[in-house]
Amino acid sequence: MVLVVRGELRLTAGKAAVQVAHAAVMLVRSARSKDRAALERWEAEGEKKIAVVAETLEEMQRLERAAKGAGIPSVFVQDAGLTEVAPGTKTVLGLGPARAEAIDRLTGALPLL
Amino acid sequence: MVLVVRGELRLTAGKAAVQVAHAAVMLVRSARSKDRAALERWEAEGEKKIAVVAETLEEMQRLERAAKGAGIPSVFVQDAGLTEVAPGTKTVLGLGPARAEAIDRLTGALPLL
Repeated sequence: MVLVVRGELRLTAGKAAVQVAHAAVMLVRSARSKDRAALERWEAEGEKKIAVVAETLEEMQRLERAAKGAGIPSVFVQDAGLTEVAPGTKTVLGLGPARAEAIDRLTGALPLL
Repeated sequence: MVLVVRGELRLTAGKAAVQVAHAAVMLVRSARSKDRAALERWEAEGEKKIAVVAETLEEMQRLERAAKGAGIPSVFVQDAGLTEVAPGTKTVLGLGPARAEAIDRLTGALPLL
């Protein structure tokens, strides 16, 4: 599972952490109904998560399209906008659970958060 | 849901985010089997999550005991230790899902991450 944080928003560490957690919970919930085998494989391998940064929304949208093309589950977190950003702002793109190699092909070049 | 990050470890933003996400996923999984009503209430209220900091493990352990006393679910995240900390290091204490007022009584004075 890779969580891609939108760099241009310059979120605080706490805000970014919460948005990353939203994405992880959403991806697990989605996998439970859509691809339980992938979920169980990911759990058995230690529930690996990595947080990386993409600077812009456009870059995240390109990643989302690439993920769809590769059959990797994806989810955008939209913030409720109570604090640092406007309501509905897309803050994190979550990818997975899927085989690490498959996700790494898309996100391996992005810097760690 | 409140995620308490262990300040003395001085985790990077990315490492802290992943540990917070581990805690959130663990708490949701636990609530699914132990207190589905609390989980559904939390989901209906927008899955609120807050990340705060407690400086030491001792402070986190005091919070864990207080949570148990108040009937609030708790979980410690132990890191696999592949990167920034030694294997088994407790990095985050997750609390909830539970009514916000109940958790706030325990963690309301802690600084945001």
